[in-house]
Amino acid sequence: MLNMFFDDFAVGQVFETKVATVSSADILAFANAFDPNPFHLDKAAARCHGFPDIIAPGMHTLSLSLKLFFDLNLWDEAVLPSPGMENVRWHRPVLPDTTMFVRATVSQMLPSRSKPDWGIIKVHQETLDRSSGALLLTVDALHRLKRR
Amino acid sequence: MLNMFFDDFAVGQVFETKVATVSSADILAFANAFDPNPFHLDKAAARCHGFPDIIAPGMHTLSLSLKLFFDLNLWDEAVLPSPGMENVRWHRPVLPDTTMFVRATVSQMLPSRSKPDWGIIKVHQETLDRSSGALLLTVDALHRLKRR
Repeated sequence: MLNMFFDDFAVGQVFETKVATVSSADILAFANAFDPNPFHLDKAAARCHGFPDIIAPGMHTLSLSLKLFFDLNLWDEAVLPSPGMENVRWHRPVLPDTTMFVRATVSQMLPSRSKPDWGIIKVHQETLDRSSGALLLTVDALHRLKRR
Repeated sequence: MLNMFFDDFAVGQVFETKVATVSSADILAFANAFDPNPFHLDKAAARCHGFPDIIAPGMHTLSLSLKLFFDLNLWDEAVLPSPGMENVRWHRPVLPDTTMFVRATVSQMLPSRSKPDWGIIKVHQETLDRSSGALLLTVDALHRLKRR
């Protein structure tokens, strides 16, 4: 736990996460709970769409990508609920057994004008396939953090 | 299943979903899998932040809100993987046993310039607390749909 606060971040800082592998069972569980579209659940249906296997729901890849970033344990005391996210883009289908990691770059520092005790950092996340290097997902995540 | 295609949508159409209730157990399961922050997992930690109980991870409320929209079963054959989402905003903390529904308004029709067989609709989703009417979440979701 690095216990970073708003003031410890700066535009241009880059963080790289560990990897995570998404299994067929993980995809099925997420899809059944939140996105029961046939191409997330059924290999035959996925093949009709030209995919070799089921593909992960976009929200699954996004949730996992944010988890990879959170697992860096950059902050502890500083974190407050996030105000939101921008520019979610799913660039490629994510197949079972894909191993991915995230490269996260601080892109904006937004100190609160009305509240001197916190600010928001904008972090541009790229989720990459470890084997091919292909870009799977990008998102600009907003994190609200206390100041020192 | 209404089996709608891109051409069946128009700016201004409004769809209202059924309701869903998020339990403490649901929140704990999602938080453990994707966002193990103390204020999502531990009542005492949530109280330190001024919340009366644990609060749902933003990605949980967002996934559930999209599920409510998908459960309208507006399309079947037409749906293709989504390109992305814009302007995710978490307006209020979501506590256990909150019952929510989604009001979804078609805000933009984007026929593909290069591909005559599909287009993208932008849908502005508002997730509302059924008891209080309070706005919990907004998102502009992009859905790629085949044309008739």
